[in-house]
Amino acid sequence: MKNFPIIRSRRLRSTPYTDRIEAHGVSGYTVYNHMLLPVSFKSVEADYEHLKKFVQVWDVAAERQVQITGKDSAELVQLMTCRDLSNSKVGKCYYAPLIDDQGNLVNDPIINKLADDKWWLSIADSDVIFFAKGLAAGYKFDVEITEPNVNILAVQGPLSDNLMARIFGEEIRQLKFFNFKYYEFKKRKYFVARSGWSKQSGFEIYVEDDLAGQDLYDQLFENGKEFNVRAGCPNLIERIESALLSYGNDFDNRDNPFEVNFDKFVSLDSNINFLGKDKLKQIKQDGIKRKLMGVRIDHNQINIHSEKTLFDENDNVVGQVRSAAYSPKFKKVIGIAMINKPYWDAKHQFKIDIEGKIFPGTVCDLPFI
Amino acid sequence: MKNFPIIRSRRLRSTPYTDRIEAHGVSGYTVYNHMLLPVSFKSVEADYEHLKKFVQVWDVAAERQVQITGKDSAELVQLMTCRDLSNSKVGKCYYAPLIDDQGNLVNDPIINKLADDKWWLSIADSDVIFFAKGLAAGYKFDVEITEPNVNILAVQGPLSDNLMARIFGEEIRQLKFFNFKYYEFKKRKYFVARSGWSKQSGFEIYVEDDLAGQDLYDQLFENGKEFNVRAGCPNLIERIESALLSYGNDFDNRDNPFEVNFDKFVSLDSNINFLGKDKLKQIKQDGIKRKLMGVRIDHNQINIHSEKTLFDENDNVVGQVRSAAYSPKFKKVIGIAMINKPYWDAKHQFKIDIEGKIFPGTVCDLPFI
Repeated sequence: MKNFPIIRSRRLRSTPYTDRIEAHGVSGYTVYNHMLLPVSFKSVEADYEHLKKFVQVWDVAAERQVQITGKDSAELVQLMTCRDLSNSKVGKCYYAPLIDDQGNLVNDPIINKLADDKWWLSIADSDVIFFAKGLAAGYKFDVEITEPNVNILAVQGPLSDNLMARIFGEEIRQLKFFNFKYYEFKKRKYFVARSGWSKQSGFEIYVEDDLAGQDLYDQLFENGKEFNVRAGCPNLIERIESALLSYGNDFDNRDNPFEVNFDKFVSLDSNINFLGKDKLKQIKQDGIKRKLMGVRIDHNQINIHSEKTLFDENDNVVGQVRSAAYSPKFKKVIGIAMINKPYWDAKHQFKIDIEGKIFPGTVCDLPFI
Repeated sequence: MKNFPIIRSRRLRSTPYTDRIEAHGVSGYTVYNHMLLPVSFKSVEADYEHLKKFVQVWDVAAERQVQITGKDSAELVQLMTCRDLSNSKVGKCYYAPLIDDQGNLVNDPIINKLADDKWWLSIADSDVIFFAKGLAAGYKFDVEITEPNVNILAVQGPLSDNLMARIFGEEIRQLKFFNFKYYEFKKRKYFVARSGWSKQSGFEIYVEDDLAGQDLYDQLFENGKEFNVRAGCPNLIERIESALLSYGNDFDNRDNPFEVNFDKFVSLDSNINFLGKDKLKQIKQDGIKRKLMGVRIDHNQINIHSEKTLFDENDNVVGQVRSAAYSPKFKKVIGIAMINKPYWDAKHQFKIDIEGKIFPGTVCDLPFI
């Protein structure tokens, strides 16, 4: 597939780290929340091998924050997600699907509770800020909704604890998964969460000052030499192997949370009030007709730039694969696909056309094992 | 400035015409409403020269439609814009700034009124659909909000009437600016508006069927040979010369409509109800402190990928240039800039650093003359 350059403009926002990642050899971009997000450095394959062994520093400023503060902020945040936040605690991160009034998905942020009346929704690629503003205006909520200047650096990989301890002190090793706390470096406090868009363990540093972030970026490389630190980014192969879903790729506003296996985040029985609750009750009662599943394909390469249809032996539509990559771990192409009801049992077989040739594949459970 | 490839995925949506524009030699993309939008073919300069003399076919599918239908649709659409739509007519297009409850800009769509209870908001680059859904849920409006499968082909340039008459018949020459009508081609009806993101005259065809659109694309080239038709796209130089503003580049959600010279679209004295009306009254009463103006710079090239600060002779900040290009017509770099109050008089001088060298410039009125 031919490559085309991305043409820069103010509308495709740079990050405070863009000059640095270009110096570190970024080799391709995507656009995410109107901002540049690196896709590869040496290559997706080489980055993958490195990420699973060492430690990487990622510019994920494109994970923008929607800050919601004020008296009614908890009510607004709860209205937007089907996940029950009534027992949520300050200092914790909550993966929470956002739902519209039709019961369809709007985004799947990590919601960070900074105070009872201060929340950061760390969003995937859709303008959640306008959804929140529309709701707040309609419900006459007493809230303030902004996009603060927060630019996340992720430190990911099995050696991430070692590197972070060098910067922020040994105490950071005690930080639990999906918890956040402020840690000090050079007399400045940084919001650090144990989280990140890989399953190789790691942290996300929510940087609130551009210059401090740029210095931190350089210090992470300076201190990371002995851990073989490199610049990296969310990795297509690793995230599919780990079944980390991507809004816009694996699901979007035409899908509901049951179709996307978010059942455990849908709190229909609680007495909380959220958008689309009645619709979701109805959908649950009627039962879904398609579901996100894994697929394995007997081939060694694939490029997905729009969904690809899967067929059974009689050319009936089995479903559509939405993301896929060759997995060195499974020695097959693996992918995430929306599979129609009669076919969604694991081990169901299908065929797929990849660049004019037909390959066989099987449906499988997520996560891949 | 080094070029980086854009890495494709389902999330960066292709259009029904992507294969065709790649065959026609597209040389760079941007991303707009999560979709690929071509930025150049031969080069921005060569495309510009051609656009001003002949006719081009543009894939502007990235101008997505937010369809709002139902009993309360007119009320919702009016709530979203400060432009008075109470006398709006079916068959007309309305350029209409969308405003949030703080009086800031959300988008600047063309609103097409298809019926009293059916509207298409042809949007710039932000997720207006979620703003509309949030408002509709909060206000309990009886509406349906969707993104229909509409993929616009624009036919732009001084010879566009000739080409369109070949396809849709001579009658189309009578279509007035910012009016739309359905015209027939091969027994199929197409929604055609006299509009488009250039001032070289032209049309936008709102294609509702992918296969028909692909055939139409080919027919436009087949019938356009004698008019020297080429594939094109919104052109940076032409649109700045014409002072056509771009949401995300020239203004965004931190700006209000008075700062962006949208005064004539702000109907504060009417009794219509729209979001942010009280805030805008207050802003108007207090007066704005900065304003979008033109700038001319004595140089022959510039690349803008984030806003660039302008200084006066004492290094005070004059403002920020947000879009700019070398203009063959004016034989200078021209740009669109947010200029602070004491400096916004036309002819005010400033200096700007372009790749390490200082160049002089002057503030000027928009549009450029």
